[in-house]
Amino acid sequence: MSAQSNRFDVIILGSGIAGSILGAILAKSGASVLLADAGVHPRFAVGESTIPHTLNVFRILAERYKVPELESLISFDQAIKDIGPVLGRKHHFGFMIHRDGEEPDPDHANQFGTSIPHLDTSHLFRQDTDAYLFHTAIKYGCVARQAYRVSEVAFGDDQVEVSGHDGQKYTGRFLVDASGFRSPLAQQLGLRAEPSALKHHARSLFSHMIGVRPTDECLDMPDSVRPPIPWVKGTMHHVFERGWFWVIPFNNDPLSINPLVSVGLTFDERRYPKPADLTPEQEFYHHVSRFPVLERIFKDARTVRPWVSTDRLQYTSTRTVGHRWCLLSHAAGFIDPLYSRGLANTGEIINALAWRLMTALNEDDFSVDRFEYVERLQQGLIKYNDELVNASFISWTDFDLWNAVSRVWAASQFPASMRFGRAIEKYRLQHDDAIFKELEQGSYTGSPFPGNEAYEQLFTEMVTTCDAVERGERTPSDAAEALMKQVVTSPAVVPYLGLEDPRTRFVSPTHETFIKMARWLATEGPADMRYLADNPRFSALLDR
Amino acid sequence: MSAQSNRFDVIILGSGIAGSILGAILAKSGASVLLADAGVHPRFAVGESTIPHTLNVFRILAERYKVPELESLISFDQAIKDIGPVLGRKHHFGFMIHRDGEEPDPDHANQFGTSIPHLDTSHLFRQDTDAYLFHTAIKYGCVARQAYRVSEVAFGDDQVEVSGHDGQKYTGRFLVDASGFRSPLAQQLGLRAEPSALKHHARSLFSHMIGVRPTDECLDMPDSVRPPIPWVKGTMHHVFERGWFWVIPFNNDPLSINPLVSVGLTFDERRYPKPADLTPEQEFYHHVSRFPVLERIFKDARTVRPWVSTDRLQYTSTRTVGHRWCLLSHAAGFIDPLYSRGLANTGEIINALAWRLMTALNEDDFSVDRFEYVERLQQGLIKYNDELVNASFISWTDFDLWNAVSRVWAASQFPASMRFGRAIEKYRLQHDDAIFKELEQGSYTGSPFPGNEAYEQLFTEMVTTCDAVERGERTPSDAAEALMKQVVTSPAVVPYLGLEDPRTRFVSPTHETFIKMARWLATEGPADMRYLADNPRFSALLDR
Repeated sequence: MSAQSNRFDVIILGSGIAGSILGAILAKSGASVLLADAGVHPRFAVGESTIPHTLNVFRILAERYKVPELESLISFDQAIKDIGPVLGRKHHFGFMIHRDGEEPDPDHANQFGTSIPHLDTSHLFRQDTDAYLFHTAIKYGCVARQAYRVSEVAFGDDQVEVSGHDGQKYTGRFLVDASGFRSPLAQQLGLRAEPSALKHHARSLFSHMIGVRPTDECLDMPDSVRPPIPWVKGTMHHVFERGWFWVIPFNNDPLSINPLVSVGLTFDERRYPKPADLTPEQEFYHHVSRFPVLERIFKDARTVRPWVSTDRLQYTSTRTVGHRWCLLSHAAGFIDPLYSRGLANTGEIINALAWRLMTALNEDDFSVDRFEYVERLQQGLIKYNDELVNASFISWTDFDLWNAVSRVWAASQFPASMRFGRAIEKYRLQHDDAIFKELEQGSYTGSPFPGNEAYEQLFTEMVTTCDAVERGERTPSDAAEALMKQVVTSPAVVPYLGLEDPRTRFVSPTHETFIKMARWLATEGPADMRYLADNPRFSALLDR
Repeated sequence: MSAQSNRFDVIILGSGIAGSILGAILAKSGASVLLADAGVHPRFAVGESTIPHTLNVFRILAERYKVPELESLISFDQAIKDIGPVLGRKHHFGFMIHRDGEEPDPDHANQFGTSIPHLDTSHLFRQDTDAYLFHTAIKYGCVARQAYRVSEVAFGDDQVEVSGHDGQKYTGRFLVDASGFRSPLAQQLGLRAEPSALKHHARSLFSHMIGVRPTDECLDMPDSVRPPIPWVKGTMHHVFERGWFWVIPFNNDPLSINPLVSVGLTFDERRYPKPADLTPEQEFYHHVSRFPVLERIFKDARTVRPWVSTDRLQYTSTRTVGHRWCLLSHAAGFIDPLYSRGLANTGEIINALAWRLMTALNEDDFSVDRFEYVERLQQGLIKYNDELVNASFISWTDFDLWNAVSRVWAASQFPASMRFGRAIEKYRLQHDDAIFKELEQGSYTGSPFPGNEAYEQLFTEMVTTCDAVERGERTPSDAAEALMKQVVTSPAVVPYLGLEDPRTRFVSPTHETFIKMARWLATEGPADMRYLADNPRFSALLDR
């Protein structure tokens, strides 16, 4: 054990979630992997909220690449058992619109939840989740090198050489930079797209707190206007003009012993430039004091760690793959934590990269064109996310517009889960990797509902409508009416969830709802969506 | 919450176990407390092993200062529930002597355990234990200031002013430096005793590992020579000439999900100078390869974090209290992790400091003489620990000598527990703080069995005997025979544990053993130990 070679098949920079999962997968397949990181575990990270689609992506990674430890992330109950009793339970996604100095209008809130326990997602306590995955990678044979800061990367024809500040050099046949914003590879190769072509603008303030009061206790509203699932039981978005607070409790389930709540504020830095005379904590409380409910939520709260105050969060890269290298996920780009898509996207990219990289290692052929789909996927995910979040920020001036925009997002979530759920169920019967490769086919790579033209039209309508509002060419209420009409009539919007009814603001499908939706897909649904019902799990349900 | 004053009653530097516990206690009593730290949580720390005496010290802190969260540390079962399923269970203290290139002699091993589950202690996973206590301090009202590096401390007549590298200043009526070796206060006031007057010499290498094999599986020995409690179920000391390995599993109980094991090597830096040509990991494995059993234990082990390689670990201070300041515990001095006394000592010092500090705050009188006992206790603990560890290191050349030295240590553990256990039981009935103040009376402050003259004689005999061996004035075997004779005949060595029988190497008292010992104390024991049996809990047992 003490004598280690400095030559590896793959060098991965960054031992966070992305690097550790990819490392575990590659090491399990027999590759020699160096997992290098500038820091050490345990450590704080944000990006805690998962969505049902995340669960399916991790099911695929666990099964396809035979790393059963990844199944710990496919349900709240399993995660809290394997990672520790420190996670929050996420029953729903909640959004509430706030206006300066006012109590929120009970009608200006939405909730997207489920009433099916096995679909419960988690608020991941990242320090423990990341360490769990890191230990898994080491268990499968990754060699860990921590507190190792990369000073230079040198590319040869048949290898990549990484040098550290301590003079230590390592060579690999391929380099994956999964280190995030401060990616040494992006810096050295000048890969950051500057000035950024991205539309969305936001910066962020965040920390972990103790003593945060549940939103429900702080609302002055009768029970009749409250949602079916208490707000505290999920990821709460307190939205205002060009900004939103997140409140992500780790302490909202009897199975958790964690007293902390993740809190943050993400807002447009053009509208809210960084003040020179306030500490991050003072600035956070300045914005809290604008909204009475938020004041009550944070009245007795105390931070347990230093506040982080970022500059503009958005960045992207001109290229994400090249000769013997790949920028993975947040090393390639980032938009906004809104909609909690980060972990699902990371998992999708790993799913696309891992089999390609294994094949390249086996065949000793690292031609860049082999990785073009990874490039397309990463650029697509960033582009669609940028448009979606940008439209959402624009919509928050008017609840009706947000009510339409949020449905365009929500409409994609059911088919997204169906696509991946179908693949995993079919794979479990047939054990044919072609099933997963099929998922990569089709147009609109990176779309929330890839391959579907009707959804693409609806999404584009959302983007152009919101852009017109921003340019002052349409009033928000006119835009809201027009966009909602599109939502109601779009063939891509599956019925029974209530998305087609603007008055249904609290969505909480049951098992029966899913059966109705599947039956609709199998019989009345559009021809290009019918395949989603071709799912071994559904056939049994539909026959009953 | 956002507007905080920069004036506090007490400023505590360091938010580790010592600072957080003292902070929680003071804040609970109504003091305003700033808890400042150069780093942030979560973070790695060593010092994981607790002893039965630790449990009693924490019982006292919890009850006396009304901080029930400290009760989480008084049993393994409670700790694993409140802190998380990440702790190891400690059934015993195990010692095994190794010689270069040889399988260990089964007769050259000792085990000190108990067969009473509620006396089980823990291997604390420090990152989570420390964070739990830190959050407790914040919950009680401590203001936390992390990533705050002190640049200067200025003492006035009626206040202390602390300045940070970021320019931020805070004032307090009293300053406690609980930051450890790199204490800013010790540096600024030049308090480190240099060159150190301490006898013991050792440096250390340590990390956390995965895949460490249980000692039991690596021994080539028949069942008949194995101890009653498997070695893996406790804190294992693999001892060699002038050094020892620690192996502290967090993964040795079905209730724990932690796969890690704390491992370290502490050895005399005069005998084993730091090599220039080896990394810490290479040096660790170099010493592992000297001993066949250790080679097997670490064959498939992998570190999950960078190795730490220290210089000489021992340091002390010329003064530990002064005008409006106190160096707390490891900020005052440190000897060696051997015997796992760190946490119990820290708790004892906090117990002595906290009530004095509360009184000083109430009466606004911070005269240094009020804190003289804290000075005497800290210096005493360091002195006795230095002598004990130094004698132990000397003894490891000869098992018979170690067999005698280890009994001098073990003989103090039962009365130490009895003294504190008696105080807490009496306090629960009488609620009289004088009971705890009485514990401070008596001679030999800092001794493993303070106040007892017979034990002091035995301890002094151990020190002079081992010193003579080190100077080459006595052979180890002659010294062993002489010292064992002292152990067997000392009135301070309570019978029934087997300490008086050199052939009893595995000590594992049952409930009945303790009743016998208590009855002996109450009837036949020396007059100056009889008070130990005056314990409400024992009277009920003895009547049966």
